[in-house]
Amino acid sequence: MSIPHGEILIDLQAEAPQEVNSDLPVVALSQRGQADFEMLATGALSPLSGFMGADDYHSVLKEMRLSNGLIWSLPIVLPVEDALAEHLKSFGEAVLKGSSGEILGKIKIEDIYKADKEKEAETVFLTSDAAHPGVAALQKLGNWYLAGEVEAYKVPHHGRFSQYRHSPAELRQLFDKKGWKTVVGFQTRNPIHRAHEYLTKCALEFGDGLLIHPIVGETKGDDIPAEIRMECYEAIIDNYFPHRYTVLSVYPAFMRYAGPREAIFHAITRKNYGCTHFIVGRDHAGVGDYYGTYDAQKIFDQFTPEELGIQPLFFEHAFYCKRTNSMATTKTSRAMDHEKIFLSGSKVREMLKNGERLPEEFTRSEVEEILRRHYQNG
Amino acid sequence: MSIPHGEILIDLQAEAPQEVNSDLPVVALSQRGQADFEMLATGALSPLSGFMGADDYHSVLKEMRLSNGLIWSLPIVLPVEDALAEHLKSFGEAVLKGSSGEILGKIKIEDIYKADKEKEAETVFLTSDAAHPGVAALQKLGNWYLAGEVEAYKVPHHGRFSQYRHSPAELRQLFDKKGWKTVVGFQTRNPIHRAHEYLTKCALEFGDGLLIHPIVGETKGDDIPAEIRMECYEAIIDNYFPHRYTVLSVYPAFMRYAGPREAIFHAITRKNYGCTHFIVGRDHAGVGDYYGTYDAQKIFDQFTPEELGIQPLFFEHAFYCKRTNSMATTKTSRAMDHEKIFLSGSKVREMLKNGERLPEEFTRSEVEEILRRHYQNG
Repeated sequence: MSIPHGEILIDLQAEAPQEVNSDLPVVALSQRGQADFEMLATGALSPLSGFMGADDYHSVLKEMRLSNGLIWSLPIVLPVEDALAEHLKSFGEAVLKGSSGEILGKIKIEDIYKADKEKEAETVFLTSDAAHPGVAALQKLGNWYLAGEVEAYKVPHHGRFSQYRHSPAELRQLFDKKGWKTVVGFQTRNPIHRAHEYLTKCALEFGDGLLIHPIVGETKGDDIPAEIRMECYEAIIDNYFPHRYTVLSVYPAFMRYAGPREAIFHAITRKNYGCTHFIVGRDHAGVGDYYGTYDAQKIFDQFTPEELGIQPLFFEHAFYCKRTNSMATTKTSRAMDHEKIFLSGSKVREMLKNGERLPEEFTRSEVEEILRRHYQNG
Repeated sequence: MSIPHGEILIDLQAEAPQEVNSDLPVVALSQRGQADFEMLATGALSPLSGFMGADDYHSVLKEMRLSNGLIWSLPIVLPVEDALAEHLKSFGEAVLKGSSGEILGKIKIEDIYKADKEKEAETVFLTSDAAHPGVAALQKLGNWYLAGEVEAYKVPHHGRFSQYRHSPAELRQLFDKKGWKTVVGFQTRNPIHRAHEYLTKCALEFGDGLLIHPIVGETKGDDIPAEIRMECYEAIIDNYFPHRYTVLSVYPAFMRYAGPREAIFHAITRKNYGCTHFIVGRDHAGVGDYYGTYDAQKIFDQFTPEELGIQPLFFEHAFYCKRTNSMATTKTSRAMDHEKIFLSGSKVREMLKNGERLPEEFTRSEVEEILRRHYQNG
C-alpha cells in the first residue's frame, strides 16, 4: 500500500454542532468549490487541511511545491468576489454552504489574498488563451482567495454515485482486506474503449489490483456526462473485468485540463487513495493542442521516485492490430496503418450520432449500446 | 539503466600470452564449467571475478548471500575430482581448457575445499531426490571445489549463436544508444507461444525496451534444443515484435532447475546485462513438482527492493480468452474454463509429434511450423 502524500492521511470530517452561529458570514461553494471541499474533507488532498494560503499558492505556481517543499502542482483555492472578501476580513471564521443552501462546514479565515490570475494561467495551464477551458473558468472566478483550515459537517455529494463514493480511508481499508500490496490507479474522463481496457489490463497483469477511478466532478460541456460514463464502466467491468482484482470508485475532483501539472496532481492524490502505480497516457488531462503529446509523462522526470512516492506507468495510444489479432501500441505491434483499427474521438461521436455501429475491435458492444443510446437521445 | 550487481561490472578478458607455461596443471572445463567461465569472463556474474571460495560457498548455501552480505543465490563453483584436487595443491595457478582442448584462460589457485553436496542439494534444490535433474548433475561432479580469480583469453562459445551473443557491456551500450532507461528482461527456455508474447508485450507497454534473453547453456534432455528455440524466437520477433523496442540476445548460463533460488539468480545477473525489470512467471526455473507454483515469486519478498536493484514483474499463466477475444490471465479475464484456450506442454508435444496443427490462439503459425518440423524429424 502507498504512503499518503506528505505521510499523513487527513480527515476533516467533524460532528455538526446543534446550531451554527447565524452571525457568521457565509461563503456559498460553487460546484468546483464543493468538489475541492469534498476532496479536502475526506483526505484526498492530504496533507492539505484547508484552502491554500498565499505562501503555498505562490510556491505551487512557481515551484510546483508547497512552501514546505512537498510536491504539489495545482492551486487548491477558494475564490471570493471583492465585496465578500472585504466583508470576511472582520471575521475569524465563515460558514460554507452548498449549492442548495445546506451548511457543509466551516472555514477558519486565516488569509485573504489577491489571486494572480495571469501568473496562475501561465504556470498552471501554460497559456493565457481564454479559449482554454481552464483559463476561461479562472477568469470568471472571484479575484480574492480565502484561505484557512476547513471543518466538514457534511460531504456535499447529494448521493450521486453514492455506492461508488469511497474516501481514501475506505479504499485503503478495502485494498488491505483484499491483500493488495500494489494497486494501479486509472484516471479517466472517457468511456472505457478497448484501448483503455487493454492498457489497464496490461498494468493489472503485474499489479495486485486495479482501481478504476473516473473523475466525476465538473468536466467541459462536450465531454460525456459522468452518469453515462458510469453506466459504461459498470457494463464493461461486469462483463470483462474480474471483480476480485478490480475496484470501481469515483474521484470527486473537477477537471482542470491542465495537462502535465494535472497529471502530477492526479498521481499524488491517488497515493492518498492507496495507489502505488498510476497510469499516465498520452496527453493526459490535455485539451486541444495546448500540450505536447508526451509532456504529461515527461513532467514526472522533474521529481525523484522517492518524493513522488507513486510509480507512473506511461502508455502509448492503443489500437486493434489486425496483424496480431490483438490490441497493441506502436511499441508492441509491427502493424502498418492499414492493419490498425482506431477511431478518433470525433469519428466515434459522428458514428454514434448517425446510429452507426462501432466495430467490436474498438468498443465492446455493451459500451457501444449505452453510448449510441446517449448520442441518439441527446 | 540498472546498476550492476555489487555496483561493479567485471571484465576478466585479457590478452592471451604468446606462450602458456606447459608445466602448469590443466583443468578441463565441462559444458557447465564453460558456461560459468563465459559468464564470469564477460561480467555476467559481476561482482564475482572467479569461482567461489569456501566462505562465499557456505554463506550462499546458508544465507543466499556472499560472505560480504551481497545477495547471491547459487554457488558458482569449479568441481574437480579427488586426484586432480590433490595434484593442484602444489601449484599457484592452473590452465583452463575447453572441451576441444583449447586454452581458455587461467585460474589462480586460492582455495580447494570439499563440496557439501548434501547441504548444497537441500538448500539450492530444496530436495535430495536424485530424480531432480540438478541433484542428479551435482552427484556426478567432483567432490572438491577449486576457487580463485579467473583470467579469460578466449570466450568458449565456438561461434554458436554468435550474432546474438552480447556481453553485459555490449548490451548496456546498445540500450544506451537506444535511449532506454527501463529494460524488461525475459528469461526463457521454451519457444515463445502466445502466452509469453502476451506477457512480454504487457511488460513492454510500460517499459522502454524488451530484452528477450533465452538461456542457451545446457538444459535437460527433454527441453527443446536451443537451436530450434532460436529459430522460433527469430520467427516471432521478425513477424510480431517491433525491432525498435526488442532485442534478442542469448544468456550463456546452464539451467539448474533450482526454482526460487534460480529466479533470484536470473534476476540479479540480468542487472549486469542492463535490465531494470525482470519477468518472473509461475514456477520459474522449476521442474516436476519440486516447487510451489508461486515460490519463485514469493522468494523476492525476502529482500528489499534496494538490495535487489531490479524490479521483478510477477505474472500468471496466460491463455486465450474466448469471451474477450484476447490473451488474458485469471487476473484479467472472467472466462469460464470452457472459454479458455490453453494447452499443456505434454499436449503440445503430442499434437506436434502427430503432425496436428496447434491452434492459432495458442501459437503463431510461424512458430508452430518450426516446432512441428522439429518433432516430426526427431
